[in-house]
Amino acid sequence: MVLEELGAYLSTGCGILSVVHRHALQPAGKLLRPLLLVQSAIAVGGSAYPVLPAALGLELLHVGSLVHDDIVDGDTERRGRPAVHQRFGTDRAIVGADALFFQPFALLAACRQRGVPDERIVTATGLLAEAGEQLSQGVMLELDQAGTLPATPSEYFQMAGLKTSPLLSGACRIGAVLAGASQASTASLGRYGHALGLAFQARDDLLPYDTPHERAGKPADSDLANRRPTLPVLLGHRLAGAPDRCLLEALLAEGAGDGDARARMDAVLRRTGALDAARKLIEGQVRECHRALSELQPGPAVTELAALADRMEARPAAQTRSPAR
Amino acid sequence: MVLEELGAYLSTGCGILSVVHRHALQPAGKLLRPLLLVQSAIAVGGSAYPVLPAALGLELLHVGSLVHDDIVDGDTERRGRPAVHQRFGTDRAIVGADALFFQPFALLAACRQRGVPDERIVTATGLLAEAGEQLSQGVMLELDQAGTLPATPSEYFQMAGLKTSPLLSGACRIGAVLAGASQASTASLGRYGHALGLAFQARDDLLPYDTPHERAGKPADSDLANRRPTLPVLLGHRLAGAPDRCLLEALLAEGAGDGDARARMDAVLRRTGALDAARKLIEGQVRECHRALSELQPGPAVTELAALADRMEARPAAQTRSPAR
Repeated sequence: MVLEELGAYLSTGCGILSVVHRHALQPAGKLLRPLLLVQSAIAVGGSAYPVLPAALGLELLHVGSLVHDDIVDGDTERRGRPAVHQRFGTDRAIVGADALFFQPFALLAACRQRGVPDERIVTATGLLAEAGEQLSQGVMLELDQAGTLPATPSEYFQMAGLKTSPLLSGACRIGAVLAGASQASTASLGRYGHALGLAFQARDDLLPYDTPHERAGKPADSDLANRRPTLPVLLGHRLAGAPDRCLLEALLAEGAGDGDARARMDAVLRRTGALDAARKLIEGQVRECHRALSELQPGPAVTELAALADRMEARPAAQTRSPAR
Repeated sequence: MVLEELGAYLSTGCGILSVVHRHALQPAGKLLRPLLLVQSAIAVGGSAYPVLPAALGLELLHVGSLVHDDIVDGDTERRGRPAVHQRFGTDRAIVGADALFFQPFALLAACRQRGVPDERIVTATGLLAEAGEQLSQGVMLELDQAGTLPATPSEYFQMAGLKTSPLLSGACRIGAVLAGASQASTASLGRYGHALGLAFQARDDLLPYDTPHERAGKPADSDLANRRPTLPVLLGHRLAGAPDRCLLEALLAEGAGDGDARARMDAVLRRTGALDAARKLIEGQVRECHRALSELQPGPAVTELAALADRMEARPAAQTRSPAR
């Protein structure tokens, strides 16, 4: 359904901007944010059709942020294809993504034509803008933390809470608001989305260590090359004895993303139990998701949202259940 | 008034994102876009207070786009200070400006707290998003045209109509809509803003040739260094005989921004009459501005808008009357 709207959106434009957008948006990811928005609307008694433009908008904003992320991280691949800046140059990638930040607001306003009352659209506009701002703050915070280790998991979750959760939490709350939910239900769905975002980011950090090769088109050693203190690394640092701690600090300070550095990092994280500790933290966030959902009326959409949360639990054996990016 | 809102906005944030924003937003430019929004609201019978957050938002969006422009153009100075990417690095400049694209929508939604009806805010949200999209399209078109000469002034105005006019026209229309203007008055103000944008861009292109040294903190030879086919250059190309035409093409293809290239460019544009021809085209757009304003009820705000248009007329003698950037 959202895929159809995406197809219709992509078929309307022409010129280099549309070419850039088509490259950035196709093949589509798993459309997690549109899915959250639509299911949240249904969970509070609404329906999909009136909120679909807003759902598409969330995906555009997300993809725009990935395009800028890839420039900042120097990643050359995304979803198994050349990153936008790799294919079209950094200048066009910057400007092309900018357009993807404006269109979601036009799409949100266009929900008016599908019968959504203006009052709900204005509230949702505030939420969408807030989500975008927090996303920028989170990326900025991550840039500041590069090469340093946050002292605690709670500092880590503060960063992830700004970088990954805003769009997931925002998608849930916007879906709820557009469908006319009560403030209580909107807040519950917001808490669900927030915890889902934390689980998602932690799962994403864990992914390179659960899988021997590249996943989701993102090179497995990008985080290390960008000297990013991921959750497993910071847990390893807390759990390690002095020698391993020194080794971790050296690996992170170097930012060496080659296979040898990766292998040494892998070994430390395994013997310190950091990977298991990370999985436990993810399970805690998944429980948070279920707690938030328990405040809503049960129904098929709530069941679907619960299943999405369960998929964030990272079991080394269940490698086919990777989260969407 | 807008300066006070800007000050209040800047004093609320903390962290590196706010530091970047303070650097980008201070010292403030001449706040042309906020001024247009407020005067347009007053021109149709509204007042300043309810629309001030939206007016501030227009400035944030504009400054965000300048930050990305400076990266794309490789310009190292803006408003007489180091460009944001020069001061904080390209990564922080990309992400910092992204935040400035989201905040205008939050500010627009916040006009609700000042009594603006939701219906008007939703319409204005669509207009703001449209302006941002067109801006991105315009910059993309400019990137495509680098090093080539558009065949006609109308092609030039098509690019400028996407790059410079959207925010000026958008500011006027958003001010009108928020103040509850009729569709006819909103359209008149939109036409005024569009023509003002074309005059503004043409004036900006002409500026380096009217002044011997740097203006508005922008190096005078940035356009040439970026192989940008400005209005004087394209007019010179049309008016020149074969030898000068070759010289112009060579200068543009080289993209040489040094003093010698500038001097040779100056000489060709003077002897072909291109600078006078550019001034004539600007005068035509200023007349368009007055025509559009004549469709409105006369009053102090309309008089103010008319005076703004007159200031775009570029007379070599009146060098103190440069347009705001």
